[in-house]
Amino acid sequence: MEAYRAIVSKRDTRAYKDTPVPDDVLDRVLQAGRMAGSARAAEPVRLIVVRDPDQKQRLAACGDATAHVLAAPLAIAIVLTPEFGEVGRPFTLFRGPFDGGRCAQNMMLAAWESGVTSCPASMHDAAYAAIVLGLPEGHLVLNVIAFGYPAGPDPMTGTRPRTPLGEFVHWELW
Amino acid sequence: MEAYRAIVSKRDTRAYKDTPVPDDVLDRVLQAGRMAGSARAAEPVRLIVVRDPDQKQRLAACGDATAHVLAAPLAIAIVLTPEFGEVGRPFTLFRGPFDGGRCAQNMMLAAWESGVTSCPASMHDAAYAAIVLGLPEGHLVLNVIAFGYPAGPDPMTGTRPRTPLGEFVHWELW
Repeated sequence: MEAYRAIVSKRDTRAYKDTPVPDDVLDRVLQAGRMAGSARAAEPVRLIVVRDPDQKQRLAACGDATAHVLAAPLAIAIVLTPEFGEVGRPFTLFRGPFDGGRCAQNMMLAAWESGVTSCPASMHDAAYAAIVLGLPEGHLVLNVIAFGYPAGPDPMTGTRPRTPLGEFVHWELW
Repeated sequence: MEAYRAIVSKRDTRAYKDTPVPDDVLDRVLQAGRMAGSARAAEPVRLIVVRDPDQKQRLAACGDATAHVLAAPLAIAIVLTPEFGEVGRPFTLFRGPFDGGRCAQNMMLAAWESGVTSCPASMHDAAYAAIVLGLPEGHLVLNVIAFGYPAGPDPMTGTRPRTPLGEFVHWELW
């Protein structure tokens, strides 16, 4: 699939078949995440692959809207290492999550090219999620992405269009 | 270009030719940014296209490492709207930048498929950048992405490999 076609056709959907994500697709997803750039090449992102049903259930208990994580055959937790906060200015608060978003999008697009859909889930109780995942001090679970082959229409995904391009884009100034 | 190939071959590079980015490529880049998903479909991201040399110069003054923004024929500022902070829990601090990273990666991949390279720049003086861009109250410049056709080897981009996959990925637990 052309990159542009993968990009504009990708939707975050939350209904999956039980079919496992094959290892060769998982490999591409992980490599896609690994190759995402990061600010100052600090590489503040690491991944934890979760397929064990009990572990998925514990993770799902850490967020308010995680039914799709439970339903998915594969979940990948995006972890920020302490590098993400090393400079004490407000913008650094955003740098790690920005790099995490780049990594997540790479993985979701690589999956989608292979017919695997996905949707992120916030870990509202990040402290408990860190315990579930056994994270070292100073590490943070940013988000968990659920992956699976799509199962019919997603009841949560409506047909609401995105903000029109004319409102989405400004020129030179707001 | 296949999506996976675009994803794994994309590097953040900072040396550009003067050649403008053609309008049809810019259109694809903007649509790619627009189609990025966001948490709860809140769409907290907007874009400002900057090509005016004076405006680029003012923006470049807002960051510590922005020579590539000055050198690039095209810069796109990623703006977060107030939606990104609407819930008062820590994770929401990260949600906007995470969605901004997804949008940025979509744009950079769409550009790269058309042979246009790119590199983000942090706006360390976000308050001044907001004035330069004329942002309304509560809006925030997350980042500026420089785009252009690559000009030779990027002196800032070394050959340092990414973290090996075996260290980058953990299984079930850290």
